[in-house]
Amino acid sequence: MSLGQLLKMLGLGAVALTLGVEWVNWLARRLRPWRGPQGPLKEVLFFPSPITCTEHLYSPDRTSPCLCPLPHGIDTSFSRLLEHLLSACVSLELCVFSFSHLELSRAVLLLHGRGLAVRVLTDRDYMSITGSQIGALRRAGICVRHELSKVVHMHHKFALVDGRKLITGSLNWTATAVQSNKENVIVTEEPELVQPYRDEFSRLWEANDPANHNHHLPSSTATKGLVTHGNDV
Amino acid sequence: MSLGQLLKMLGLGAVALTLGVEWVNWLARRLRPWRGPQGPLKEVLFFPSPITCTEHLYSPDRTSPCLCPLPHGIDTSFSRLLEHLLSACVSLELCVFSFSHLELSRAVLLLHGRGLAVRVLTDRDYMSITGSQIGALRRAGICVRHELSKVVHMHHKFALVDGRKLITGSLNWTATAVQSNKENVIVTEEPELVQPYRDEFSRLWEANDPANHNHHLPSSTATKGLVTHGNDV
Repeated sequence: MSLGQLLKMLGLGAVALTLGVEWVNWLARRLRPWRGPQGPLKEVLFFPSPITCTEHLYSPDRTSPCLCPLPHGIDTSFSRLLEHLLSACVSLELCVFSFSHLELSRAVLLLHGRGLAVRVLTDRDYMSITGSQIGALRRAGICVRHELSKVVHMHHKFALVDGRKLITGSLNWTATAVQSNKENVIVTEEPELVQPYRDEFSRLWEANDPANHNHHLPSSTATKGLVTHGNDV
Repeated sequence: MSLGQLLKMLGLGAVALTLGVEWVNWLARRLRPWRGPQGPLKEVLFFPSPITCTEHLYSPDRTSPCLCPLPHGIDTSFSRLLEHLLSACVSLELCVFSFSHLELSRAVLLLHGRGLAVRVLTDRDYMSITGSQIGALRRAGICVRHELSKVVHMHHKFALVDGRKLITGSLNWTATAVQSNKENVIVTEEPELVQPYRDEFSRLWEANDPANHNHHLPSSTATKGLVTHGNDV
């Protein structure tokens, strides 16, 4: 065999080897489903969730152990939800029908206190019910808008963390939902799912800008108290 | 060059060519995001949805045009939801808090009539409210179970089509939710999302088997009528 022929064979062999390795890698990724998740984050959380101590999530740098009587060091659906929420570094967009959960409110206030851009969109009737945290968020300076229509419910329950992580499902941000109800939440960074929710938030945020409407906000006293609604929500 | 060397080179070349084609295909798939969706179905539907004629979805073989006064031939979020539901060939598992939507009820009854395995899991209180379709489904012979606990709401709103397509979101199966509320629904065949919901359905189905419990079902008269609930659901 001449030197030229040898070089040709070596060259072809190297190309085949490189492509072969790439191909085997690709095949391994295709056949990997049972070996673990692939691609962007996709996580499903079911509720009700047991009540455990979540102090370490609010202040990860804390050195002294928490002395509260709740169980410690246990991962639950709620602690996972809280972790995802508190992972925000830049922004939080929240679009939620009913918001009365104290720990979730504390998390949102904490993110606002850290200087993140927090925007909250909520339901007109439910924002003023007993126990609602919307007033507390507003008083802290968080920008809150509500569905302006008097005949429509803003029934979404989703959050966008840093514009790239979507948290969505059946779960209202209430203690009953978290601790008692059968509920589900999807947490995902899948762009094909995240983008439509980003667009929807922007659309609803603009559509419910009070500056674009003539009618006044409802007085908080007028809608305060227990809101009962039709059975059809 | 000897015949042996020629065969070796041709063999290596063929391998390199095959692997190269595979690699280019793989690269094209990786670089395709802007050219359209890839991987399993992922679709997001937002509501409210305009009311249009959906007769063609119930009877695709119909030849005469529908003469109803509603707009025809328009794709809406609701028609997409209905299409996904009616795409079922084998089974439908439905886990829904409130079910009073007549067209969705018609779709479920149609699938049952076609001989599909239909199972419905619902909320104890909401199954008996005015307008609920749960009674109609039961009378048609569809297997329905409800949350047995008296203090817990079955607040899910998801469906599994043929065990491989998940429909989930904030949307209760009611006319108000479809036509008035701001709501979202994810439709996906992503196995990492579908499987947890399959497991949850199986778990809840078994947990709410009346045969495993001593207490009686609530009488339909006792729970009939408008159910109002706390503001915290």
